[in-house]
Amino acid sequence: MQYSRNSFLKTLGLGGILATSSVLTASPFKEILGENYQSGATRSLTLGLASYSTRKFSLDETLVIANRLNLKQIAVKSMHMPLESSEEEIKAITAKFEKAGIGLYGGGVIYMKTAQEVENAFRYAKAAKMKVIIGVPNHDLLPLVEMKVKETNIKLAIHNHGPGDEVYPTPEVVYDKIKGLDTRIGLCMDVGHVQRLGLDPVKNIKKYADRIYDIHLKDVDKSEADGKSTEFGRGVLDIPAVLKALKAINYTGVMAMEYEKDSEDVFAGLAECVGYVNGALDAIK
Amino acid sequence: MQYSRNSFLKTLGLGGILATSSVLTASPFKEILGENYQSGATRSLTLGLASYSTRKFSLDETLVIANRLNLKQIAVKSMHMPLESSEEEIKAITAKFEKAGIGLYGGGVIYMKTAQEVENAFRYAKAAKMKVIIGVPNHDLLPLVEMKVKETNIKLAIHNHGPGDEVYPTPEVVYDKIKGLDTRIGLCMDVGHVQRLGLDPVKNIKKYADRIYDIHLKDVDKSEADGKSTEFGRGVLDIPAVLKALKAINYTGVMAMEYEKDSEDVFAGLAECVGYVNGALDAIK
Repeated sequence: MQYSRNSFLKTLGLGGILATSSVLTASPFKEILGENYQSGATRSLTLGLASYSTRKFSLDETLVIANRLNLKQIAVKSMHMPLESSEEEIKAITAKFEKAGIGLYGGGVIYMKTAQEVENAFRYAKAAKMKVIIGVPNHDLLPLVEMKVKETNIKLAIHNHGPGDEVYPTPEVVYDKIKGLDTRIGLCMDVGHVQRLGLDPVKNIKKYADRIYDIHLKDVDKSEADGKSTEFGRGVLDIPAVLKALKAINYTGVMAMEYEKDSEDVFAGLAECVGYVNGALDAIK
Repeated sequence: MQYSRNSFLKTLGLGGILATSSVLTASPFKEILGENYQSGATRSLTLGLASYSTRKFSLDETLVIANRLNLKQIAVKSMHMPLESSEEEIKAITAKFEKAGIGLYGGGVIYMKTAQEVENAFRYAKAAKMKVIIGVPNHDLLPLVEMKVKETNIKLAIHNHGPGDEVYPTPEVVYDKIKGLDTRIGLCMDVGHVQRLGLDPVKNIKKYADRIYDIHLKDVDKSEADGKSTEFGRGVLDIPAVLKALKAINYTGVMAMEYEKDSEDVFAGLAECVGYVNGALDAIK
C-alpha cells in the first residue's frame, strides 16, 4: 500500500494545477481571517486541512492535494514549514500558498516547552501572517503566551490530545487554564481525541463554544484510548452531529481535516473524508 | 493528470487486499438480491458501483478500488466482463467477485438492438447470476424482453440517457413503454441524465417509484444537455434530496456510483463522491 512519490507527482500533475490555480479565495472565517477574506464556498462551515495529514508529502504535494479536494484553508505543520525557518524562508513558503490560491490561516500543533519556544512560535506565525496558532504551551508559560497574544493579535488555540496527555488531555483542562486569560486564547478542539476519552464531542463543543478557535475534525474506530483515525463514517464519531453543533454555536473558524490513516497513501482516504463532510453539510443545511 | 497503471497497482497493493478481503457481504437489496443476502451495512440505502466508472482499469483493479471504498455491490460493464464471454469465462469472473467479497448484482448498460442481443444479454446475466440487467432494448424488442424476464426471473432496469437519446431520453418515456408489461421490467434512473434534461430527479423518483430497480447516482455541473459529471456536491444536483426521496419510497435496490470524470485517475474523485453519499446518509438518518 505504499505510494510512490514519483508516481504521485505524475498522477497529480504537479505544477500544472499550481500554475493554473485560482486566485486566493478564503472562507467565512472572518473572526480569524479578517474581513478582507472572501469565501468562494456556499457552505456555512469551512473545511480546511491540518497539514499533519499529508506529513509524508511535501508542501508542494500538499497544496496540490488540497486544491484537488477544494480545501482552501491550511493549518501548516512544521514538516511543511520548519519552526526554525527564517523570515526569508517563510516568505518563500507563503508565496507558494498564494500561488496555489490557498489560505495559510494557522500553524500547528506547535509545542512550547520553553519561553524561547513561545517567542519563536509567535515570530513564526507573525512572519507567515497566521491568524491562529494551534499550540500546546506548558502551563507555566501561559502568562508569556498571553503577553504575546496581546502583542501580536494572533489567536492561540490550545489543542487537547486525549488519553495519556499530561498537559491538556481534555477540553475542560484547557478551558479551566485559559478562561481567565485574554479571550484570544482558546481551544483547538480535537474531536477525535475527545471521543477517545469517552466524552461527547457535541457536549464539549457547546460547553466551550465561546473559546473554540480551531477544530481538528476526524473519526476514530473506537471510543477508547487506543482508538485510531479512520475514514469518516466508518468509525464511532457522529460527525453530522458535530457539524450540527458547530452550526448551532455559529462557529466561524476552520474545521481542519486531520486524517491520520494511510499516511504514505493518504489521498483516497482523505478524499473520502472530505466528501463525507460535504455530503453531511449539504444534508443538514 | 495521468495515472500510471503500474504505480496504481503498486499503490493499491493489488492482491494483498483481495487475498485478505472479507467473505461475501451484500445489502438490504432483498427484492433484487434475494432473502439470503445479508447486509454488513448499517445504512438504510446501499451504495454500489457501476463499473463504467472504472472503465480505464481492469476488473481486478476495480475490485480493489471497490473494496477500499467499501462498495460491496457492483453492476459490471462490458469492458470488465465482455458480453460475448463464454459460460466458462463468466464463471472465472464471478469467482473473482466472490473472492473479493463483492456482490455482482447486475450488468450494464447493455444495449439490445436485435433479438440476438436480447437473447445474449439474458444468457450472460443468467450465467453470472445477476439479479438485474441495466439495459436499453429497442422498443420493438420489448415483447421478447418480457418473455426473457418471465423465463429467467431476471429484472430489467431500462436506463434513461437524457438529452439527445432517441430511445429512452426520460424516465417518463421508459415508464410509458413498460407500465403495461411484466412488473419485473422497470427503470434504472440515471439522476444525472434527468438533471441534464432540466427535470427534477426527486419528482421523477417519486413518480416512478414502483418500477425503479436500479439508480445511477451522479452529480453534473449544469442542468443542461452538455452538463458533465463532477464530484458530488460540486455540481447542481441536490443529492441529499435524492437520497431522502429514495428513503421515502423505501427503495431497496443499489445506488450505483457512476462517476465519469477523471477516468484515467478516478480513485480520489470517486472516493470523494462515496464519502459524500455516506455523509449525507448519516446526516439524514
